Amino acid sequence: MSKTFKIAQAQVLVPASVDEAFEKAERFAKLAKEQGADVFCLPEMFCCPYETKQFPVYAQPDAGTMKTRAAAIAKKYGLVFSAGSFPESDEAGHVYNTAYVFGPGGSQLAKHRKMHLFDIDVKGGQAFRESDTLTPGDQITVFDTPFCKMGVLVCYDIRFPELSRLMALKGAQVLLLPGAYNMTTGPAHWELCHRGQAMFNQVFVCATSPARDLESSYHAWGHSMVVDPWGTVLSEMDEKEGLQITEIDLDRLSAVREQIPLLRQRRTDLYTLEEK
Amino acid sequence: MSKTFKIAQAQVLVPASVDEAFEKAERFAKLAKEQGADVFCLPEMFCCPYETKQFPVYAQPDAGTMKTRAAAIAKKYGLVFSAGSFPESDEAGHVYNTAYVFGPGGSQLAKHRKMHLFDIDVKGGQAFRESDTLTPGDQITVFDTPFCKMGVLVCYDIRFPELSRLMALKGAQVLLLPGAYNMTTGPAHWELCHRGQAMFNQVFVCATSPARDLESSYHAWGHSMVVDPWGTVLSEMDEKEGLQITEIDLDRLSAVREQIPLLRQRRTDLYTLEEK
Repeated sequence: MSKTFKIAQAQVLVPASVDEAFEKAERFAKLAKEQGADVFCLPEMFCCPYETKQFPVYAQPDAGTMKTRAAAIAKKYGLVFSAGSFPESDEAGHVYNTAYVFGPGGSQLAKHRKMHLFDIDVKGGQAFRESDTLTPGDQITVFDTPFCKMGVLVCYDIRFPELSRLMALKGAQVLLLPGAYNMTTGPAHWELCHRGQAMFNQVFVCATSPARDLESSYHAWGHSMVVDPWGTVLSEMDEKEGLQITEIDLDRLSAVREQIPLLRQRRTDLYTLEEK
Repeated sequence: MSKTFKIAQAQVLVPASVDEAFEKAERFAKLAKEQGADVFCLPEMFCCPYETKQFPVYAQPDAGTMKTRAAAIAKKYGLVFSAGSFPESDEAGHVYNTAYVFGPGGSQLAKHRKMHLFDIDVKGGQAFRESDTLTPGDQITVFDTPFCKMGVLVCYDIRFPELSRLMALKGAQVLLLPGAYNMTTGPAHWELCHRGQAMFNQVFVCATSPARDLESSYHAWGHSMVVDPWGTVLSEMDEKEGLQITEIDLDRLSAVREQIPLLRQRRTDLYTLEEK
């Protein structure tokens, strides 16, 4: 396996239609490929307004044409493609916030349904209740890629130390996170969540946000970033639309885990953390 | 129970002798009391050089006179006293890095033996092997105080998300942490560890370091701090000796947990974290 590879993050403004969103996704995929990227990431709900009432409107069974179009982009450009997240429905009519990852041949590598829904009510700040229209997923998602094992989780999922830890214990070396913090939680917690989980679990965290659109009802924080296993921010965007490319060096991960062997030093004789 | 109270942290230079360390501790306790403190904290190994070979030399059974002198300070000034940590031995000759907490009447509220030993080897940075002379503890330590439930853990313990989470789940609202990061781990991780655990677990973290002594073999980072349950640093010292007083408002903790109900939103149907 290669020891270094490049991750591209497209921090996009969410367009008015799914068609426009995929045209934009493809433009950025092409640009990423031209700049030598191996992995290409989009943000949470990049093709759907971030509004609870819109999720069921945009949802399709197994994400329908959103999924097939994303798979086609992965294949066309030969990229591992973390296709942000889509509203996805199942036969029972439940709607999920689902992150798919495709391999360079277009096959599906992973499918993660957001398992911790974003229900918050900050006084004088932001209130949001995803659970009004969404159903949470029930799987921890770690998978093989041509570069290393990766995990995918969605936004609010990273606030739960149990999940990130279990992903690291399952062998994930990179956590891909399509997210969309807002103007309350963003400045307070976006960087801290990702640096914290990266450092505690000694993994890379690649967090991709939509660009900030003050015309939309949900103002995303932006600041897409990649954090290394030492907790250092390797790259960070501002709030505007754009593409960021970051080199991932897996030797850095090995070195950090050798120097401070946290995962080996867990007191598993005193506490136990397990997937049910 | 009072909703607000004051925590004083004495960031001390470690003196040459135990006697001097306790004379200094008492001076700072008196100062803390005069400034209205309710809780008084000292750093890890405040009365013993931070050198693995010294721990067995300074250790006493159940911390001996170090413990009785600390209890007397708590009683004399009517303070909850987190007496940093001492080298402590048991009948079998094992030596521990032990944090005691005393109540305002001088009774022992808690005794925590550092359960994750600091064994690291950072290339071009710091190497240290506590396990050369220390034995790790085997208890998670959460206890009642006149103000709220608190937990105590020692330095490296806070790098393990399982422990801080279990302490929060046991009801700790304040984590007292005598610590002594060095000039490698300090700038990289001291703030991030404490802000991270405070935010993920929605607790106050009160981390107390020795002052930096460039004459000693171990150069502590200093920067004693208190972080609130939102992850905000309420107060932070530089590297020099001194006293810092911070007001703790437990209503802030309730508000944060109400606004972003992380502890209630854990997916305990999918993962389980338990003390053995």
